[in-house]
Amino acid sequence: MIIRPESHWFIRLFAWHGSVLPGIWFRLSLNLLMSLIAIFCLDWYETLGIKLTLAPFSLLGVSIAVFLGFRNSVCFGRFIEARMFWGNLLIACRTLQRLALAISPADAPRVTSLLLAFSYSLKHQLRHSDAREDLRRYLGEEADEVLKRRSPTNFIELQLSQWLADQRRRGNLSDILYMHMDSNINQLSQVLGGCERLASMPVPFAYGLLLHRTVYLFCTLLPFALVPDLHYMTPLVSVFIAYTFLSLDTLAEELEMPFGLATNHLPLDAMCTNIEINLREMNLDEDLPDTPRPDSRYRLT
Amino acid sequence: MIIRPESHWFIRLFAWHGSVLPGIWFRLSLNLLMSLIAIFCLDWYETLGIKLTLAPFSLLGVSIAVFLGFRNSVCFGRFIEARMFWGNLLIACRTLQRLALAISPADAPRVTSLLLAFSYSLKHQLRHSDAREDLRRYLGEEADEVLKRRSPTNFIELQLSQWLADQRRRGNLSDILYMHMDSNINQLSQVLGGCERLASMPVPFAYGLLLHRTVYLFCTLLPFALVPDLHYMTPLVSVFIAYTFLSLDTLAEELEMPFGLATNHLPLDAMCTNIEINLREMNLDEDLPDTPRPDSRYRLT
Amino acid sequence: MIIRPESHWFIRLFAWHGSVLPGIWFRLSLNLLMSLIAIFCLDWYETLGIKLTLAPFSLLGVSIAVFLGFRNSVCFGRFIEARMFWGNLLIACRTLQRLALAISPADAPRVTSLLLAFSYSLKHQLRHSDAREDLRRYLGEEADEVLKRRSPTNFIELQLSQWLADQRRRGNLSDILYMHMDSNINQLSQVLGGCERLASMPVPFAYGLLLHRTVYLFCTLLPFALVPDLHYMTPLVSVFIAYTFLSLDTLAEELEMPFGLATNHLPLDAMCTNIEINLREMNLDEDLPDTPRPDSRYRLT
Amino acid sequence: MIIRPESHWFIRLFAWHGSVLPGIWFRLSLNLLMSLIAIFCLDWYETLGIKLTLAPFSLLGVSIAVFLGFRNSVCFGRFIEARMFWGNLLIACRTLQRLALAISPADAPRVTSLLLAFSYSLKHQLRHSDAREDLRRYLGEEADEVLKRRSPTNFIELQLSQWLADQRRRGNLSDILYMHMDSNINQLSQVLGGCERLASMPVPFAYGLLLHRTVYLFCTLLPFALVPDLHYMTPLVSVFIAYTFLSLDTLAEELEMPFGLATNHLPLDAMCTNIEINLREMNLDEDLPDTPRPDSRYRLT
Amino acid sequence: MIIRPESHWFIRLFAWHGSVLPGIWFRLSLNLLMSLIAIFCLDWYETLGIKLTLAPFSLLGVSIAVFLGFRNSVCFGRFIEARMFWGNLLIACRTLQRLALAISPADAPRVTSLLLAFSYSLKHQLRHSDAREDLRRYLGEEADEVLKRRSPTNFIELQLSQWLADQRRRGNLSDILYMHMDSNINQLSQVLGGCERLASMPVPFAYGLLLHRTVYLFCTLLPFALVPDLHYMTPLVSVFIAYTFLSLDTLAEELEMPFGLATNHLPLDAMCTNIEINLREMNLDEDLPDTPRPDSRYRLT
Repeated sequence: MIIRPESHWFIRLFAWHGSVLPGIWFRLSLNLLMSLIAIFCLDWYETLGIKLTLAPFSLLGVSIAVFLGFRNSVCFGRFIEARMFWGNLLIACRTLQRLALAISPADAPRVTSLLLAFSYSLKHQLRHSDAREDLRRYLGEEADEVLKRRSPTNFIELQLSQWLADQRRRGNLSDILYMHMDSNINQLSQVLGGCERLASMPVPFAYGLLLHRTVYLFCTLLPFALVPDLHYMTPLVSVFIAYTFLSLDTLAEELEMPFGLATNHLPLDAMCTNIEINLREMNLDEDLPDTPRPDSRYRLT
Repeated sequence: MIIRPESHWFIRLFAWHGSVLPGIWFRLSLNLLMSLIAIFCLDWYETLGIKLTLAPFSLLGVSIAVFLGFRNSVCFGRFIEARMFWGNLLIACRTLQRLALAISPADAPRVTSLLLAFSYSLKHQLRHSDAREDLRRYLGEEADEVLKRRSPTNFIELQLSQWLADQRRRGNLSDILYMHMDSNINQLSQVLGGCERLASMPVPFAYGLLLHRTVYLFCTLLPFALVPDLHYMTPLVSVFIAYTFLSLDTLAEELEMPFGLATNHLPLDAMCTNIEINLREMNLDEDLPDTPRPDSRYRLT
Repeated sequence: MIIRPESHWFIRLFAWHGSVLPGIWFRLSLNLLMSLIAIFCLDWYETLGIKLTLAPFSLLGVSIAVFLGFRNSVCFGRFIEARMFWGNLLIACRTLQRLALAISPADAPRVTSLLLAFSYSLKHQLRHSDAREDLRRYLGEEADEVLKRRSPTNFIELQLSQWLADQRRRGNLSDILYMHMDSNINQLSQVLGGCERLASMPVPFAYGLLLHRTVYLFCTLLPFALVPDLHYMTPLVSVFIAYTFLSLDTLAEELEMPFGLATNHLPLDAMCTNIEINLREMNLDEDLPDTPRPDSRYRLT
Repeated sequence: MIIRPESHWFIRLFAWHGSVLPGIWFRLSLNLLMSLIAIFCLDWYETLGIKLTLAPFSLLGVSIAVFLGFRNSVCFGRFIEARMFWGNLLIACRTLQRLALAISPADAPRVTSLLLAFSYSLKHQLRHSDAREDLRRYLGEEADEVLKRRSPTNFIELQLSQWLADQRRRGNLSDILYMHMDSNINQLSQVLGGCERLASMPVPFAYGLLLHRTVYLFCTLLPFALVPDLHYMTPLVSVFIAYTFLSLDTLAEELEMPFGLATNHLPLDAMCTNIEINLREMNLDEDLPDTPRPDSRYRLT
Repeated sequence: MIIRPESHWFIRLFAWHGSVLPGIWFRLSLNLLMSLIAIFCLDWYETLGIKLTLAPFSLLGVSIAVFLGFRNSVCFGRFIEARMFWGNLLIACRTLQRLALAISPADAPRVTSLLLAFSYSLKHQLRHSDAREDLRRYLGEEADEVLKRRSPTNFIELQLSQWLADQRRRGNLSDILYMHMDSNINQLSQVLGGCERLASMPVPFAYGLLLHRTVYLFCTLLPFALVPDLHYMTPLVSVFIAYTFLSLDTLAEELEMPFGLATNHLPLDAMCTNIEINLREMNLDEDLPDTPRPDSRYRLT
């Protein structure tokens, strides 16, 4: 995730970090090359009676814009949904911590550990990274038991649920309060299930493919359609149009799977740290981790 | 469902598996044929004073793109809703299993069997396939009783509800906990009712028909409108435009009914296996089924 | 509602049942007539210096397409919402029946009767048809009392609520279970209130009027704008464009009020029968009604 | 709100009541005048070398259509949300009445009075009209106490809440039933808060301004761009396009604040009467008010 | 936030306050300058064989309009979501106050103080302003303890939760009522978590950048494409188109982060005062603050 401070509109025109330019640099160069070829061959292929005019490309371009807009809103919707789940995770963690502090304050640190283990485990599950170190920090020896499972995150939730059942069995909790806290554990289930759904189910492959291809072919043929009218200005206009279409296509692809480490993905590390700060502050811990800040390239992971 | 690993953008341009090309191959060939006819007859029908220009097709093409975009988002919305129901099924199953383990651990295996029978029965109901084998695996002799019903899936839910009522009647469950668990059984009802709604109620037939026809007629007449301008380039541009429109039309149709076995349908088999792995792992079973993986053509059913 | 079996794409091009053609036949003929007039008068009105070009119609056409797309998604949204309410009705009926069977099985037939009376009464209220016969079947003499009311459906819900209050007063139900069942009766309220909202509040009349008029004027003037370019091809292209626009306008209008008996309306009869099958099967009744099937013209009412 | 009976498509083309024509009559005349000026000055300003062509207007027109479509769906969304709140008010009133009848029938008339006072007070608050008369009818002397408050509607809800608290304190209600009824009073809070939010927060002023201005300037300049091509047909086409754009702009503005008394606003009077009929019928009152009907100009306030 | 009284459509055409003109004045002047340069250089660069035609700009313009429409609805969605959270805050505060008055009236003033401290603290947190003064007003000495925390708003919620837990521990509240009130405290958590989510997570930076750049380059090149057709009219049309695109781009940017003090941001001050009036009126306080009114430039902060 790129978090840039507000900057003047003029400076922003030339921003490099946070733009999608690095990802489409090569493809724009190809488009530039095509434009130059179009200019040099113009005379030659006009003698062949082959000509491309702009009108069909205009029709095609508007259609592609409509479809690209559709795909963009779908992929952006996934990004927003993913962010919403992590926002709900913070809310659910705070609520469970709040209830633990209100109902059985002695157990609050245990609840904190399980909630943090849940959050870090979810992050590692979504990023396919190694959860060992983080889980050991919060769960100690129990971590090995958890890591053996195929769904470690769900297993941690189960531990939380069993701590709660234990409280009820010992008579520390009435059935009412048990139900109330369990409903909040359900919120964790919702977050876990929702994130797994997003991660395991991309937008149907054919959509991406279809737009990827049409955008590509469109940008490749475009210079030949522009050159009879624009002549020497072809490269400028052609690269400009290609930039717009390729950027949106690339951006949509990045947002489709928002749990990775790419420029526009969610800063799960920072979110986990934020949950940790919140929960431990509620326990009145003093040595909290630092608030995460973007690095010099404005990135937050 | 096609689950492709990330591949280079260049290689992806030529992907065959997962694209809708196999479904529209024949219709694109027809369009190519039309283009060739248009080129050969150009001189002849110009003498007749018959000519088609691109301008009305441009208007029509943009309109069709807008309507196609509408139909696409409707059909895609159905696909997403179906996926959401199955995601909620996993969440509800985990929650009921978690509660069973917390409240009456001795009954957990019975709950697991009923939840798995529910999931498999729902899959077979949606795919109109034979549930006998799967239900026998989980329910034993009870399966025959279930299979006689017109709504077997609802009947399995009823069994679960009656197990719960039985617990309450015997005094193992307070009314509070009964209500709490019953609310989670309601989640199964929501999933069942929602899937039945999607399966029994297509998008009004006239929508699909209208777009099917206009896209078709449009693609058929298009070469004749392109040929006066583009001449020898007609086949290239005409097939390109037809590919874009026909693909989206075909894709929308496939996504409309997402419970089948076609390329872009939901992998219900894999989802059922996933629910099974999750529930049985919560019971600490050791011999879990394998995690489902896409086959060599990237398909997951 | 038209429920067509899947048919080959080619056959579907010529489908008559389920298309909106029957409704716009006359208006398309008018458009054809206009095209012929335009061809015959071309020479004459060109001498007058009056000419219509396609460019302003192109602008207008795209704008109308955008607005028509908006109206379509609004009207389709109403259709979907109506379907959702009836889906929720089925879910709520099953849940109440399930709870009745679990908590006081002796009363289950009474609950079934009230739920079925509620469903049929809602159907008749929405279709402004006579509920007498259906209500007598389920309520016997009580039906006359119900039919005297201005909101019979709400009155039936009140009976259900009073049966429940009675159970609580006699001590058969704890307050918890009373609350739990009453929450499910609330689902019936939501369905009733939602359907009444859709039925009593159309999309603002001015929207339909505006699009109706612009689509009309547009289709009438279009041939005169096409004829200078297309000449003898005018009728073909003009009728094609008019077909697209008029169909969508007509379809939107039909979907706006989805409770009637027109081609694209909801099959409320079939839905009521389906609820009946479900509830009576849960009571283990043997002689269930037949599952509703579309007639020879694929219609389901 | 205009509630028109279904009429033949042909008659509807000339409807006056319920259309937005009365509101834009003057502005359409201005546009007509501009068209005539354009025709008369055509020769003169062509000699000046000043000419406007349609191409930039086409680009601008489509852009404005997209933005107008956006504003329309936003404003229509507000209208729908407002209608939804009033639908929920009816549902919440029925539910509270149902619960009062089930739990303490003797108090039902008091609950009815408070619910009706709430509904009428909300109507008057949203329309900035005088609630005195209606409140006196339902609350008697208490009305004066209520009318002194800055948020009379919220104050009435507080009375209802205190009646409920009183019941609990006297031991007539268990905590469970208190909670259940209070949750339904929360529904009234949701309706009140939601309506206040809509009423106090318009769509950002700059949106309306921006579209208002661009639509205006566009319609004013349009005749000069059309006249070189269309000549004598300019007024027809220009007024047609202006009608489409101005109507949608005006309609969006009307729907933005749906609580007033304009043609397309919500019929709050009728809705209040409807709530009254429903609640009093549940009390078995005999002399109910008449069902509200549209007047001779199809209006319902 | 600009709250303008309704004004005549004609006067509104020239409104300055509340329009985005002040923010794009300089950039429109640049566009005007470009247009003049284009007019003066027309002859010169036509001799170079360099020419820009409108057709590719038309394609590009429509595409940019589609993408701008997408970004606008996303940013406006954030604005609406933020407003919704503050509406829900008012509802939750009223509900908690209502419950406090019903259940333990003696504590109502303490609840009021905590709710007001929560609201003001949230406002200051979102605006990065100094909460000291407001918190001291409501919390007295406790404020210092709160202000030491990294999440003061969450800490105030924790105080409320602990007051509630205290009541339960002392036996003033049954578990049922504890659960009911805690569920309403959860509503505060939802508001807090939701606002933090909006504030910490902008729309992916690349979106804004992409549109910012394309809109810019488009407006800069446009005069050169318009000048061959429009000649002396270029500045008028070019500035008009640039105004439309730049305004929407600027407005989207302002709405993206709705918690600031800019023209189109939310009036958090007024909303906090409104909550204060509501809660204190429910306690029957007499000296309420004045209802907030827009200043002479129609602004409400």
